Amino acid sequence: LRHVSDDQKTHKNPSLRAQGPPTRSPTKSHTPSPTSPKNSPQQSHAPVLELEGKKWRVEYQEDKNDLVITNTELKQVAYIFKCNKSTLQIKGKINSITIDNCKKFGLVFDNVVGIVEVINSRDIQIQVMGKVPTISINKTEGCHIYLSEESLDCEIVSAKSSEMNILIPQDGDYKEFPVPEQFKTAWDGSKLVTEPAEIVG
Amino acid sequence: LRHVSDDQKTHKNPSLRAQGPPTRSPTKSHTPSPTSPKNSPQQSHAPVLELEGKKWRVEYQEDKNDLVITNTELKQVAYIFKCNKSTLQIKGKINSITIDNCKKFGLVFDNVVGIVEVINSRDIQIQVMGKVPTISINKTEGCHIYLSEESLDCEIVSAKSSEMNILIPQDGDYKEFPVPEQFKTAWDGSKLVTEPAEIVG
Repeated sequence: LRHVSDDQKTHKNPSLRAQGPPTRSPTKSHTPSPTSPKNSPQQSHAPVLELEGKKWRVEYQEDKNDLVITNTELKQVAYIFKCNKSTLQIKGKINSITIDNCKKFGLVFDNVVGIVEVINSRDIQIQVMGKVPTISINKTEGCHIYLSEESLDCEIVSAKSSEMNILIPQDGDYKEFPVPEQFKTAWDGSKLVTEPAEIVG
Repeated sequence: LRHVSDDQKTHKNPSLRAQGPPTRSPTKSHTPSPTSPKNSPQQSHAPVLELEGKKWRVEYQEDKNDLVITNTELKQVAYIFKCNKSTLQIKGKINSITIDNCKKFGLVFDNVVGIVEVINSRDIQIQVMGKVPTISINKTEGCHIYLSEESLDCEIVSAKSSEMNILIPQDGDYKEFPVPEQFKTAWDGSKLVTEPAEIVG
């Protein structure tokens, strides 16, 4: 197992533990603006952080490390889409969180009663402060999950993903454990038997 | 388990058991031809089926169901690249076979002493007539592997893939078994334990 250096630790890394005030100002929804073409060939979208009905939408955030959602309610969900090099903290207790199409994104949350889902993403860091029953990782390369003492019973469901690591709190520090991403399947005479392929630690 | 109908069976499917003569004629290597643009926006490449040193190159084949390689030697490898809606039969004994970036591609082979690798592909069918120690599937959606009695000890190594099935010969027919593609990982107090998530059969 690889030792986790200080700058990789979420709990010692201020950029992953943003404590700034809620950034609620960019209320404009993302709409393509064909009338104002940019130099970049990619379409640019206005960043979103807003509560729409019972859904917190966090979209198109770039280089924002002080995103915070407070005043959460149990029935609310958070949907994080196309955020890049940003960090979001969600306080309180929320139903579920989805991270979709994000890169270099950090999520810190207190409690989720349903599921945290990561899909089609890359280089994601998640820190659980309280509890969560399930974290699902799908089509994602690079996902570090920092569990709390309270969330050690969390189940990680993974598919079509790589470079996943679970960080377990130990002696006031974290120890990193890789999640298997390659599997061996063989016929045992009556059924297929599948097990993780050897992990080179 | 799903029953395999006759038209899905490689051994009853002439398109997967091509017996035609070797198609060695297209010897031209693949080079982009900017001087002859096609209607299609995609670049078109001349199909390749040739022995280059000890490597059989099979590239850019489209809608060819009678591709055959004979006169193989143990030191030779086969590299199949960007073939679409085609079927290749490799007779004899060969070191290894790689299927890279292919779609709707069928491979029938006698014996491989090393490994058969499928990477970055979609809708692949492989039929083993003799023996092979290992078949590796990486970043692939849809891979059916028909094993022979002799190759029942074959090990399937999979990563970042989905819709994989192994077909086991039984009573003169095949029975299909899905390869797990989703896994559950949990902390047991001292280490991570990973097992296949429930397969809905």
